[in-house]
Amino acid sequence: MFGRLLPRGEKFYDFFERHAKLIVSGAIELADLVANPVNLEARAKRIKEIEHESDVITHQCVEALHKSKLTPFRREDIHRLISRMDDIMDFIEAAAERIALYELTAMTTEVAAFTETLTAATRKVEQAIKGLRHLKHSKAVLDHCVEINRLENQGDVILRSAMARLFKEEKNPVLVIKWKEIYEHLEEATDRCEDVANIIEGVVLENT
Amino acid sequence: MFGRLLPRGEKFYDFFERHAKLIVSGAIELADLVANPVNLEARAKRIKEIEHESDVITHQCVEALHKSKLTPFRREDIHRLISRMDDIMDFIEAAAERIALYELTAMTTEVAAFTETLTAATRKVEQAIKGLRHLKHSKAVLDHCVEINRLENQGDVILRSAMARLFKEEKNPVLVIKWKEIYEHLEEATDRCEDVANIIEGVVLENT
Amino acid sequence: MFGRLLPRGEKFYDFFERHAKLIVSGAIELADLVANPVNLEARAKRIKEIEHESDVITHQCVEALHKSKLTPFRREDIHRLISRMDDIMDFIEAAAERIALYELTAMTTEVAAFTETLTAATRKVEQAIKGLRHLKHSKAVLDHCVEINRLENQGDVILRSAMARLFKEEKNPVLVIKWKEIYEHLEEATDRCEDVANIIEGVVLENT
Repeated sequence: MFGRLLPRGEKFYDFFERHAKLIVSGAIELADLVANPVNLEARAKRIKEIEHESDVITHQCVEALHKSKLTPFRREDIHRLISRMDDIMDFIEAAAERIALYELTAMTTEVAAFTETLTAATRKVEQAIKGLRHLKHSKAVLDHCVEINRLENQGDVILRSAMARLFKEEKNPVLVIKWKEIYEHLEEATDRCEDVANIIEGVVLENT
Repeated sequence: MFGRLLPRGEKFYDFFERHAKLIVSGAIELADLVANPVNLEARAKRIKEIEHESDVITHQCVEALHKSKLTPFRREDIHRLISRMDDIMDFIEAAAERIALYELTAMTTEVAAFTETLTAATRKVEQAIKGLRHLKHSKAVLDHCVEINRLENQGDVILRSAMARLFKEEKNPVLVIKWKEIYEHLEEATDRCEDVANIIEGVVLENT
Repeated sequence: MFGRLLPRGEKFYDFFERHAKLIVSGAIELADLVANPVNLEARAKRIKEIEHESDVITHQCVEALHKSKLTPFRREDIHRLISRMDDIMDFIEAAAERIALYELTAMTTEVAAFTETLTAATRKVEQAIKGLRHLKHSKAVLDHCVEINRLENQGDVILRSAMARLFKEEKNPVLVIKWKEIYEHLEEATDRCEDVANIIEGVVLENT
C-alpha cells in the first residue's frame, strides 16, 4: 500500500542512514571523552559539529518529505523517525556540552558504563535503520529493536544506581545538580533510541 | 466515517480500559505509600510492576493498531491516547521510584493532598475511557473531561504552594532538589491526565 | 490540494493571529518584569491572565479543527502549530511565575538580554503567522522563519554563558537551582518558536 520499494523512497533511506552514522560517531566521541576526560571544550565542540551535520540532514529530510507526493512508508512515521533520531543526537550533544561547561574532569564509573551502553544502542539503531531498506529480512530488523530495548533497560539500571550513589555520597549540592542533569540527558538519549526502535517496529509491521 | 461501532474496534476499547484500570491502581498505591511511608522500596517495586503491566498493554495496542486496516476512530488519536495514558503511569512510577531512591520517609501535607487529587483524576480518566465505547452518552464523557481539567487546576494550586514552601522553609539544598523533582513528576502526571481528557474530547467531537 | 484560500479556512488564521498577538504581549510583559523587577506577583498574575486567554483560543481552535471537514492546510499541521504556539506562551508564563515564586528581585544581565531576544523572536512568529494567509508572498514568510532560527541560536549563546557564570559565581546552591530552572524555561520558549518556524516552513513548502 505504501509502495515499499519505490525508487523515490531511496532518498529517505539515505537520510536515515547518514543520520544514524552520525549518531554512532557522536556516541563514540562521547564515550571517548568520558573514558579520557581531557580537552573537554575542544571535544564537546567536535560533538557539537557532528550534531550540526545531523541537523542539516534532518532539515533536508523534512524538506524532502514536504515536497514528496509519494513516500516509502507512512508520512508521519518518516517525520517521527527522523525527529526522534535528531533527539538522540541532541541529548548526546547536551551531555557532552554540560560536561565541558561544568568542567567535570573526574568521571564516575557509572557514566563510563553508561556511555558504552549508549554506544551499543546507537550501533543497533544504525543496523535497524539499514534494515528498513530490505524489509524481506524483517526478522533481523526486529531483533535489533529487541536488543535496543534490552540496552535501554540496562542503561536504566546503571543510571538508577548512579543516581542513588550520587545522592548518598556527594556532599556538594552543586555537583549533585550538575551530575543529575548529565545523567538525565543520557537517560533521555537511550529513551529516544527506544522510541526509534518502536517506530521501526511499527513500520515493519505495516509493510511486511 | 470511522465506523464508530465496528466490532473490530472492540479490542482497542479493551486495551484502553485495561490500561486505565492499572493507572488507577498505580495512583492508589502511590497515595497509600505517601499516606504511610514505610517499606518504600517494596512498594515502589509493586508500582513498577503495575507500570510494566501497562507497558505490555501499550505495546499490544500499538501493535494491533499497526495491523488493523480499520479503527474505531482516527488512527493518530488512538496512538496519542494510549501514549499519553502510558505517560501518566510512567510519571506515577517515577514519583514512587524517587521517593524510595531518595529514602524520603517524612512526607509533606501537600504531597498527600496532591496524590489524593491525582487519584481522583485517574478515576475520572477511567470513567471517560469507559464512556468512549458508548458515544451516545457523550455528555457524560465530556463532563468527566471537564472534571479532569478542574482536578488538574486544583493540583497546580497544591503544587505551587508546595514549591513555595519548599524554597522558603527547606534549608538543605539536596532535599530541595529531591522534592522539586518529585513535585514535578506529580505535576506531569496530572498534566498528562489533562492531555488524555483533551484527546477524548476531540474523539467525541468528531464522532457524535 | 488543501484549498489554500478556502473561505472556511479564515477562522483558523484568525485563531493563529490572535494567539500570536497574545504571545508577543506575554513576551513584552516578561521583558518589562525583568527590566524592572518590582511588584513581581501582580505582574506574573497579569502574564498568567494572558496565558489563560491564549489557552481559550487554543481550545477553540482545536474544537474547530475537530468539527471542520475542510481545513486550509494539513490537519495535523494545524494541530501542531497551535500546540507549539501554546507551549511558547506556557514557558513564558512559567518563567514569570518562577521569578515571582522565588522572589527574585535581582536580575542578571543575561536574563535581560535573553528576554529581549525572546521578544524579538515572538514578533517574528507573529509576522510569519500573518504571512500564512497570503502564501503568494511566501518568500517573506520564509525569511521570518530564518530570522527566528537566528534568534534562537542567539538565545542559546546568551543562555550558555548565563549558565556558565551561574555555576562559576553563584555560591548559594538554592539560587543555582532557581536560576537554572528559569533559564531552562526561557530556552524552551525560544525552542518552541523554532518549532513553530519549522512547521510554518513545512506548510509553505507544501502549499506553494
